[in-house]
Amino acid sequence: MMVRCSQCLYFYLFTLVGYSLGSPEYWAERSQILADESHESLGGKLKFNRGERAVNDILMTAKAQEIRAGFYDPSNFLPSRNFMAVIEDIKESSTFQMIRKMPKGALLHAHDTALTSVEFVYSNITFRDHLHICRPGAPGEILGFRFLRSPDADGTCKSQYGWENLADLRADPNKADEINAMVKNSLTMVVPNPEKQYPNVDEAWTAFMNVFDITEPLLTYYPVFEDYYYQGLTELRDDNVFYLELRSILPNLYDLDGKVYGPIDVARLYKHTTDRFVKDNPDFIGAKLIFAPVRQCTTSTLDEYLRIAEELKKELPDFVAGFDLVGQEDKGKPLIEFADKLKAVSPDIPLFLHAGETNWYGASTDENLIDAVLLNATRIGHGYAILKHPKILDIVKERGIAIEVNPISNQVLRLVDDLRNHPASYLFSRDFPVIVSADDPGLWGATGLSYDFYEAFLGIMSRSADIRALKQLALNSIKFSAMSKDEKARALCIWNEKWAAFINDSVQDHNVLFM
Amino acid sequence: MMVRCSQCLYFYLFTLVGYSLGSPEYWAERSQILADESHESLGGKLKFNRGERAVNDILMTAKAQEIRAGFYDPSNFLPSRNFMAVIEDIKESSTFQMIRKMPKGALLHAHDTALTSVEFVYSNITFRDHLHICRPGAPGEILGFRFLRSPDADGTCKSQYGWENLADLRADPNKADEINAMVKNSLTMVVPNPEKQYPNVDEAWTAFMNVFDITEPLLTYYPVFEDYYYQGLTELRDDNVFYLELRSILPNLYDLDGKVYGPIDVARLYKHTTDRFVKDNPDFIGAKLIFAPVRQCTTSTLDEYLRIAEELKKELPDFVAGFDLVGQEDKGKPLIEFADKLKAVSPDIPLFLHAGETNWYGASTDENLIDAVLLNATRIGHGYAILKHPKILDIVKERGIAIEVNPISNQVLRLVDDLRNHPASYLFSRDFPVIVSADDPGLWGATGLSYDFYEAFLGIMSRSADIRALKQLALNSIKFSAMSKDEKARALCIWNEKWAAFINDSVQDHNVLFM
Repeated sequence: MMVRCSQCLYFYLFTLVGYSLGSPEYWAERSQILADESHESLGGKLKFNRGERAVNDILMTAKAQEIRAGFYDPSNFLPSRNFMAVIEDIKESSTFQMIRKMPKGALLHAHDTALTSVEFVYSNITFRDHLHICRPGAPGEILGFRFLRSPDADGTCKSQYGWENLADLRADPNKADEINAMVKNSLTMVVPNPEKQYPNVDEAWTAFMNVFDITEPLLTYYPVFEDYYYQGLTELRDDNVFYLELRSILPNLYDLDGKVYGPIDVARLYKHTTDRFVKDNPDFIGAKLIFAPVRQCTTSTLDEYLRIAEELKKELPDFVAGFDLVGQEDKGKPLIEFADKLKAVSPDIPLFLHAGETNWYGASTDENLIDAVLLNATRIGHGYAILKHPKILDIVKERGIAIEVNPISNQVLRLVDDLRNHPASYLFSRDFPVIVSADDPGLWGATGLSYDFYEAFLGIMSRSADIRALKQLALNSIKFSAMSKDEKARALCIWNEKWAAFINDSVQDHNVLFM
Repeated sequence: MMVRCSQCLYFYLFTLVGYSLGSPEYWAERSQILADESHESLGGKLKFNRGERAVNDILMTAKAQEIRAGFYDPSNFLPSRNFMAVIEDIKESSTFQMIRKMPKGALLHAHDTALTSVEFVYSNITFRDHLHICRPGAPGEILGFRFLRSPDADGTCKSQYGWENLADLRADPNKADEINAMVKNSLTMVVPNPEKQYPNVDEAWTAFMNVFDITEPLLTYYPVFEDYYYQGLTELRDDNVFYLELRSILPNLYDLDGKVYGPIDVARLYKHTTDRFVKDNPDFIGAKLIFAPVRQCTTSTLDEYLRIAEELKKELPDFVAGFDLVGQEDKGKPLIEFADKLKAVSPDIPLFLHAGETNWYGASTDENLIDAVLLNATRIGHGYAILKHPKILDIVKERGIAIEVNPISNQVLRLVDDLRNHPASYLFSRDFPVIVSADDPGLWGATGLSYDFYEAFLGIMSRSADIRALKQLALNSIKFSAMSKDEKARALCIWNEKWAAFINDSVQDHNVLFM
């Protein structure tokens, strides 16, 4: 009787039905707590219609299967493993496939040159005319890309080879494979063993920023920049996302004639490309721009940024949503250093501030959360550290300041390994103003928003969180967007139609499959 | 201006002093939020006396140095690395060394055969007469230990060698090293690369339970059991802990004459050994017992457990504190299965229930937290999942149900890797009823409570959490103990003296060093 049991015969994860134990009063009180918690959670107040209930049954069956498999063998549970190591497995998941089809509303936190899939960049952009690369003597990483009409005129490649035409290199069958592998590897952070290769936040950020640095001259070639963005919108639409708020540093663009396009030109290009895309795809409702230059800057540079922001707002008032600062928070300047300037920004330029993307509790980065709130941020990017700040939790809830949660980004950049430990569990459990976003999908081999919805749904929310939680995320993405009241009303109307169609299609698919 | 910055020149972690930016109103509001959050946190309401302030300065300097080093190179930050890989580094930490000297109050969550250091078990117990081992054919792990007068009479060793006298094996200089390494390795979970060797919760638990299984016949030999416990108390006292609440399965003990000692005998042995220890060390105030058999049992076995608990309470009313169930929660039976029986337990036998030691949000293990509260648990063991349960958070705060946080245990058993993600950050930030404990220090090469205090202080609390937070943990360990009102008053009085002496000694040490 007293022998320890290391062999466990029964698993009790899934069934609480059928216990005859416990008094009726006990069961009533217990059920009430569970019901209250469910009601208080994200989506818990939404009512099912008949179609939703049917589709939910399918979704929850798939979800339960995945959780059960993970419970029996935790190494199988995808949200607890680094996204870059399991992306192919996620594609096979029935839960994921259903989420793909779901109208997810808006993508509200994503960055300019990390929006679009590596597949497009590799197979389309790197095969374009005039692309040159700079490579080291020994096989290794690409040192740089550049579109050039006349490579000799550009002295920025310090390799012994100078700028080499990529098409010429690929034409040599003995070199093509090696060159192509180098090119591909330089476009993302994806590696076979990410946790080993990026053992901590700083090393992950170094690799992450390296990709931005190397791909910048590849993507800021004017014709490419436009196509890259158009393709990004295409991929969002394919992923059943219908609206975007894009953070951009508005990098200078260049062309073969040496012309340089400044931030206002770039914003116009975004606007025109958005309009063209919406014209081509009327069920995609649009995009807005958050001007988000790098936070590691002097106060006089910030003045210049804010001047540009004002000019942008004047030139493109409906398209420009607001302002932010980007870059690794722990290594950039804290918001407090810019507080007086940011506080003085016109209310026409709302702030969508990155804050608390850190696990250094009590550091200045962590305190950015306090400044974000004092600066009247409309939304907070990441807010990973928010649980540690009771006052800030109260304020964001009271004022409806949405937290932009980016599960995969936080995992890939090594804030958290097992997403079941992601602090958004708390936010979801209490229906905080929250949206789920993708941050930089192109950098880790993803596209669109579905992967992050999948991780949130399976790994961060309760096992009992159902289709209403996903619906609420989509509704939140409209509610907390920078759209005007009228735009939101129209967006909601369109989204409702899409949702109804999704439910209808899913019911029909289900009937076809199971009749 | 638009060039991305991947080289970051400045680190802003530590200094917020000296900014001339921001309006006075802004600074006032910001300071108020920080002050409110500090006041609301664990220990935030305690006032410093002069000595405490001086000692705090020394402590905070040491803490800031460690955090700064970790910030510059995250791979140096000890709380984010597996305890078993960094224990030697922790011993070198000035923060740790100060915590060692601090009177930490009570250890309220620790298990019987994991209380005492491996050093003692190896160097003392495994060198005792009559110890036999069972080993496999090829070099590898020990299959079993047993104290035997006549090895041939015991047929439980299925190895080709049968039971072998360990002293005889060690006498052979060609074998001694290999045998000693095997013996040592079998006594703990410690391995060179724990994250790789125990890749998930289940594999960590398997290794953990294997150590319990293998060492049980080593430690349940009557004379050893007594000495092991006495040594455990010695190590607690050496670590400046002065009271213990021990969870024990009350395993059957044996001796060389074949006598078997049942649970009541074992409890009596604990009581007498405690009394002897207190007599030998009057500044150690005592210990109580929580009868905690394995949760993987039938309801009729539970009936027998509860019958024993009643008998224990009758026989040793002041010594027996209450009842619990132990074992891997995810694989054991959920509390709900035993709810009616546990609800019916006499109020004389308070429940100290393990609950929510899981990251399977929404699983039955996770719901154990609800049952723990409905069953009027006096304290909750681990409660790792509590953040996901808003109603339970409200209830434990309102009723003062203390959460027993065991940082190192949660890390070693792979619930969380980087302790900065431990949910207790939230509990500390809001001054929840909480104590910090050590769970099974002997199994991961630790002793006492200081290692867990260190991890909590450096890794889980805010950078600004100071000596008052540690003082509050010690005070909480008295407040939330199972001691009677009078016992608590006496304990507090003794602890206050110890604390004053610690402050005095530290001030003097400081003066000596810095005068």
